[in-house]
Amino acid sequence: MTGKMAPMTPATMPLPRSRAEDRVEQPILGIDIGGTKMAVGLVDAQGNVLISGRTPSPARGRAEDMYGALVALCDSVMAEGGEPQLRGVGIGSAGPMTWPDGVVSPNNITAWRGFPLRRMLKQKFPGVPVRIHNDAVAMAIAEHWKGAGAGYDNVLGMVVSTGVGGGLIINGQVINGGLGNAGHIGHLVVDPDGPICPCGGRGCLETIARGPAIAAWAVEQGWTPHDSSSPADARTLATDAANGDLIAIVAYERAGEAVGVALASVAALLDLDLAVIGGGLVQSGELLMSPMRKAFEAHAGFAFVKRLQIVPAALDQDAGIVGAAALIAEGDRYWTPSDDE
Amino acid sequence: MTGKMAPMTPATMPLPRSRAEDRVEQPILGIDIGGTKMAVGLVDAQGNVLISGRTPSPARGRAEDMYGALVALCDSVMAEGGEPQLRGVGIGSAGPMTWPDGVVSPNNITAWRGFPLRRMLKQKFPGVPVRIHNDAVAMAIAEHWKGAGAGYDNVLGMVVSTGVGGGLIINGQVINGGLGNAGHIGHLVVDPDGPICPCGGRGCLETIARGPAIAAWAVEQGWTPHDSSSPADARTLATDAANGDLIAIVAYERAGEAVGVALASVAALLDLDLAVIGGGLVQSGELLMSPMRKAFEAHAGFAFVKRLQIVPAALDQDAGIVGAAALIAEGDRYWTPSDDE
Repeated sequence: MTGKMAPMTPATMPLPRSRAEDRVEQPILGIDIGGTKMAVGLVDAQGNVLISGRTPSPARGRAEDMYGALVALCDSVMAEGGEPQLRGVGIGSAGPMTWPDGVVSPNNITAWRGFPLRRMLKQKFPGVPVRIHNDAVAMAIAEHWKGAGAGYDNVLGMVVSTGVGGGLIINGQVINGGLGNAGHIGHLVVDPDGPICPCGGRGCLETIARGPAIAAWAVEQGWTPHDSSSPADARTLATDAANGDLIAIVAYERAGEAVGVALASVAALLDLDLAVIGGGLVQSGELLMSPMRKAFEAHAGFAFVKRLQIVPAALDQDAGIVGAAALIAEGDRYWTPSDDE
Repeated sequence: MTGKMAPMTPATMPLPRSRAEDRVEQPILGIDIGGTKMAVGLVDAQGNVLISGRTPSPARGRAEDMYGALVALCDSVMAEGGEPQLRGVGIGSAGPMTWPDGVVSPNNITAWRGFPLRRMLKQKFPGVPVRIHNDAVAMAIAEHWKGAGAGYDNVLGMVVSTGVGGGLIINGQVINGGLGNAGHIGHLVVDPDGPICPCGGRGCLETIARGPAIAAWAVEQGWTPHDSSSPADARTLATDAANGDLIAIVAYERAGEAVGVALASVAALLDLDLAVIGGGLVQSGELLMSPMRKAFEAHAGFAFVKRLQIVPAALDQDAGIVGAAALIAEGDRYWTPSDDE
């Protein structure tokens, strides 16, 4: 087995075996696939993660090695759970992908180009529904189902991390868009004259607010890590900002402002109730969030825009597994294509 | 009667009385309320306007005068239609309004501040459903039901005129947002350092692309109408642009670019199939549309964004009536609040 079990925490600790056998009956296998790691868990109908494991993604290798690592992780989690009869399999994967058929070509997983992930997992888990969505959409769904967005009808879930992604819940249901790509808030244009984006556009939010872009901008302005043994990345930059480095502070301000502008636009367009923000950069706390709120307030005019609540994500690293499982557990709300398994 | 009947055109000409009596049975009264004019029509279940009339809006007068003019117009259209038994009443009104209760305070109708339009019309037309939405949403619905958006599942309907507004159809259904204000594309931020907007925000699309803003910008750059008897407005500016006035051309380019940037953002966020653009400024044709397409292409990166089709509106001045009637005729798609009549 290549899967490394997550450390036991109250949230992921298996229940005592006797109760676990009751509740693990017909659990859902939730799969979260990213460029750095994969996570798999057994999730019950209430969204509790009963057992989970994670493993690094061999994302630069061969397609079959990447898939083999996923299968090994699934097998180990299934074994740990006593080989339960599954209710279904939900997948949140880095994109882009064609959807709902789930042929994935994730930017950060070069091993997979046009890889028929959904079909492969249907073959591995025959007889049960196998459903897939973009990983940022899965995060939004998780926060809506079990996290900070629970009880709200119109929610943006947003991740600010190595990339900037998102997902939308409107009138209580996930929004897919024509080809399953709705939610790409990272590609709102926040500066029409801004940098060219790898997507092919220009001035996208992601070119300014993704972690590597924040660090690169600071380096351009002359920043070097105070601790010269640290990498010149967003995490080091956050540490230096906390220690009063002016370039570092301004770099985070610039990113936070761009996020705030984008939130004002999305709130005007969709009349949202709530935006839930997750991802590594939010862990830097007020460094990003404070300029974000300031810019939001400056650009939000109408009362229906100003009313947007902006809150940090409530779920931990299991959010991807939980959101993936929700595609099965709460299909009425979160899985709406006419095509189905 | 204060209502002035619309000129007879193939689209609005009443059917010969014998056939009309068959089809006018249980028609819908569609009401379109703007700051300049009001229009009312009898619409059949297929979206044909059988009879219609329009009248100027006494928008700066007293609340009861404005409402009285509306009632007189409704009465004249009902009389013209042989006092049919109505299936229901649909209203598209300038906003903002509270929704779905339809208490309106339209920016351009100072006569109405907190005016309970939906309730008043419920009293006038008892026993049938009376439904209301924002006028730009009604336009988007009309284009989706009977116009350029028919057959598409994910559509933005947009009006570029004295203001810039819009409405959204997602997965075949109208999107309302938490308070009924979804679709406000005019308040996407396209220039974070741009002009203060009357909404209270800054750099909104509307501050750049609404007709009066385009003309005002040209005047600031030194433009005066070639024909000194013409007003310095967007229409005169369009004429001068067609005659090669450089400031006029650049003024429209600037507006078209802002619209194109906004469309790229919305397509990325919502993975749309189609954008339908209507309103007076689109009648200027390529003057606005050509720089708009160019900016869209420069800012649309992903294939799912680039695939957006951008087309002019197909319906004529009756679009507002048709969209309002659709709230009744096609309530499953276009009227989704849990509150109802």
